[in-house]
Amino acid sequence: MATKSSIMDTNSYSDDYSSLLSNTTRDMINRREKWMGGAYRLFYRKPVNLVRGQGQYLWDAEGNKYLDMYNNVAGIGHCHPAVVEAVTEQMKLLNTHTRYLHERIIDYSEDLLKMMPDEIDKIMFMCTGSEANDLALRVAQEYTGGTGIIVSREAYHGTSALTSGCSPALGSEQPLLPNVRLIETPDYYRHGGTPEEFTAWYLGEMQKKIDELAATGYKFSCFLADSIFSSDGVHPNPVGFLKAAIDVVHKNGGVFIADEVQPGFARTGDAFWGFARHGIIPDMVTTGKPMGNGIPISGLAAKHEVLAAFSDKLPYFNTFGGNPVAIAAAQAVLNVIKEEKLQDHCKVVGAKLLKALQEVKDRHPDSVGDVRGAGLFIGFELAKNDGKKTPDQQKALDAIELLRDNNVLTSVAGPYGNVLKLRPPMAFQECDIDWIASTLDKCLHQLES
Amino acid sequence: MATKSSIMDTNSYSDDYSSLLSNTTRDMINRREKWMGGAYRLFYRKPVNLVRGQGQYLWDAEGNKYLDMYNNVAGIGHCHPAVVEAVTEQMKLLNTHTRYLHERIIDYSEDLLKMMPDEIDKIMFMCTGSEANDLALRVAQEYTGGTGIIVSREAYHGTSALTSGCSPALGSEQPLLPNVRLIETPDYYRHGGTPEEFTAWYLGEMQKKIDELAATGYKFSCFLADSIFSSDGVHPNPVGFLKAAIDVVHKNGGVFIADEVQPGFARTGDAFWGFARHGIIPDMVTTGKPMGNGIPISGLAAKHEVLAAFSDKLPYFNTFGGNPVAIAAAQAVLNVIKEEKLQDHCKVVGAKLLKALQEVKDRHPDSVGDVRGAGLFIGFELAKNDGKKTPDQQKALDAIELLRDNNVLTSVAGPYGNVLKLRPPMAFQECDIDWIASTLDKCLHQLES
Repeated sequence: MATKSSIMDTNSYSDDYSSLLSNTTRDMINRREKWMGGAYRLFYRKPVNLVRGQGQYLWDAEGNKYLDMYNNVAGIGHCHPAVVEAVTEQMKLLNTHTRYLHERIIDYSEDLLKMMPDEIDKIMFMCTGSEANDLALRVAQEYTGGTGIIVSREAYHGTSALTSGCSPALGSEQPLLPNVRLIETPDYYRHGGTPEEFTAWYLGEMQKKIDELAATGYKFSCFLADSIFSSDGVHPNPVGFLKAAIDVVHKNGGVFIADEVQPGFARTGDAFWGFARHGIIPDMVTTGKPMGNGIPISGLAAKHEVLAAFSDKLPYFNTFGGNPVAIAAAQAVLNVIKEEKLQDHCKVVGAKLLKALQEVKDRHPDSVGDVRGAGLFIGFELAKNDGKKTPDQQKALDAIELLRDNNVLTSVAGPYGNVLKLRPPMAFQECDIDWIASTLDKCLHQLES
Repeated sequence: MATKSSIMDTNSYSDDYSSLLSNTTRDMINRREKWMGGAYRLFYRKPVNLVRGQGQYLWDAEGNKYLDMYNNVAGIGHCHPAVVEAVTEQMKLLNTHTRYLHERIIDYSEDLLKMMPDEIDKIMFMCTGSEANDLALRVAQEYTGGTGIIVSREAYHGTSALTSGCSPALGSEQPLLPNVRLIETPDYYRHGGTPEEFTAWYLGEMQKKIDELAATGYKFSCFLADSIFSSDGVHPNPVGFLKAAIDVVHKNGGVFIADEVQPGFARTGDAFWGFARHGIIPDMVTTGKPMGNGIPISGLAAKHEVLAAFSDKLPYFNTFGGNPVAIAAAQAVLNVIKEEKLQDHCKVVGAKLLKALQEVKDRHPDSVGDVRGAGLFIGFELAKNDGKKTPDQQKALDAIELLRDNNVLTSVAGPYGNVLKLRPPMAFQECDIDWIASTLDKCLHQLES
């Protein structure tokens, strides 16, 4: 790829690293390159050949055990038996589309909507977060009669033609759509000030972007954002800052689409949804990754009057979306989150993890600029101690490589690619804190020496 | 919906039919309408509440058994044990994304590409046919430097913003993209003439549409088509007619994307892929529906030089696409098709089914205009015996309703919505022929009396 792309280009394998690999791994890579399209890029200079997962752990083909600090898809833990069982049992019974009646999809719709604000009272199902965002954008445009879209500076919202045109994280070779404007990353670490000042600054930025759209002939339609700003480098604070900006969105006739693919499903500990941390009622909510623990399912929940603007007029049918097997997985995930009280778990263990990581930061003032997070979603930012908080992408990339060598898997995020994204399965336990904290400590020492 | 939409609007439930339903069914419908978005439309005036499937059969909650003449997703049969087992075993082991090495995706890539022409030598995986077509269109545009797209008059290629803009079957409320042109349905039944004349007519139409694009400022990029023209009403004949039109596509600098979501995976009996029946080598092939027997997986296979135009420049990552569980399902499907020799099966039993249906036609000259098909993909066209082949949509809609009352499930297709689409799981057996043929016979008698 020609240019930086924080979400797509971390370290990835290239032939330069071939000599570091076992023959088996090299053979696999060669066969993969032979058959699979060139857009497939492997994590790490020394790619990992995983064969097994359980809870928060992964094992490679040689039996090495890894701590997974990255995967929010296996939200309730790799290979959770409740999902395996639910999917297996439903697969034996029936798996067909939503043009026939089926009890499960109705039950799940009710259960999931009951986790949302009362105003969000309708849901539809797709297979991927991309599909959910693609549809949400179309719904927003039908509802508002506008086409202008605002997303965050380093947002990633999907792989379809429409959503990739709203995803600056894909890099500069991926053109943004002409009706898309980028709002600055809400980077409280760099911006500073009181929460009130920060809130005022961000809502001002929102109004500026809306005005820019109008000035260039695009009626404002929507603000699409992940409320933890994962691709922007994980920005959960100050809690509540987002609400005033959403009020600006509404005052200007737009709608807010909360992309919950990242913060949703209890991970932040503060709330079941990321938007709820900020006290916001969105107009639409899109869900994906952790929803089915790896079985492809996504959702678009919306206020009925917003959705109706689309569905009274236009048909939408998604062959696999919401089929009984996908719903079985999603229902099992939701049940487990409730039964195992994973939101509380994320809050408690996440706070301890954050504290441990802040201690690592304190031991490495020349490497670590900031550690921030909500529940089990933490950004660990590498920056130079130069009074200017200069992002240190090279150290971040070297760190994830060293972490991998020390059996901890994660990756980077943010416009400068310098923030370690620590987002483990929610099966992560207190006993794992020492593994990640001490390994990070060791790796930073090594990089500093 | 405001207008006719062959693929989306067959008969569907509305409150007018409420009195026909059991209390349980009515309650389910009410709950479904309460929670689920209005774009969800149920098949049939009296919707069916399915709870179990096996092979070619489905059962409703009251224990009634149905013959499934419609579902190509459960391609190798509802709840095929090979898929259940493969998915269950892989779910217990690992389900993660393609940024790590995994043996299964490499093996399957090789196995699937070996079923294609040698020139098609690279593959990528997504979750839905929509995602595959969305990406294929973007690849075609990168490769050719053009944006102009040609699709069939009543085509359906997906639900994303881009693919729905290339899907006239969604009805007139769904605007086509300005760079899309529609080529006439290759309706040999209505057009007539020798195969050579028909071939010449169709290639002429293709050139006209390419010229139209050029005349309106759109450089030609691609022709995207399902080679059995399923949404257009099922048009498999004359075998080979499509090849000359694809030569025209190539001569004009365009690429041909074969959308194999409908005819692919052995169903036509003549070949594993629909395009192969016509002796064509496409530039890209998209797959979906039957690929994983209901587990969401789709693919984009392409000539390496075509795909490289995109992937050398742009990143693409699909979180669930090609994950080990989806691949396990796809591998099981491919293995079963080979081991159970389902292509031969489709050819043999499909020919017998076609013959039986032609006999039904002969008994109903005032109702049935044409019966045509390839393997287990048959179009049964209701038309008036008025010397003008006037399509009889009302009779077709009434017929599918009567069939449903007689425990046979299917639906309609085509620009006039008058063609019964008979496309059962490939588990359909010779012993099922009498069920569909005699039921159809009976229903037509009833409609004629």
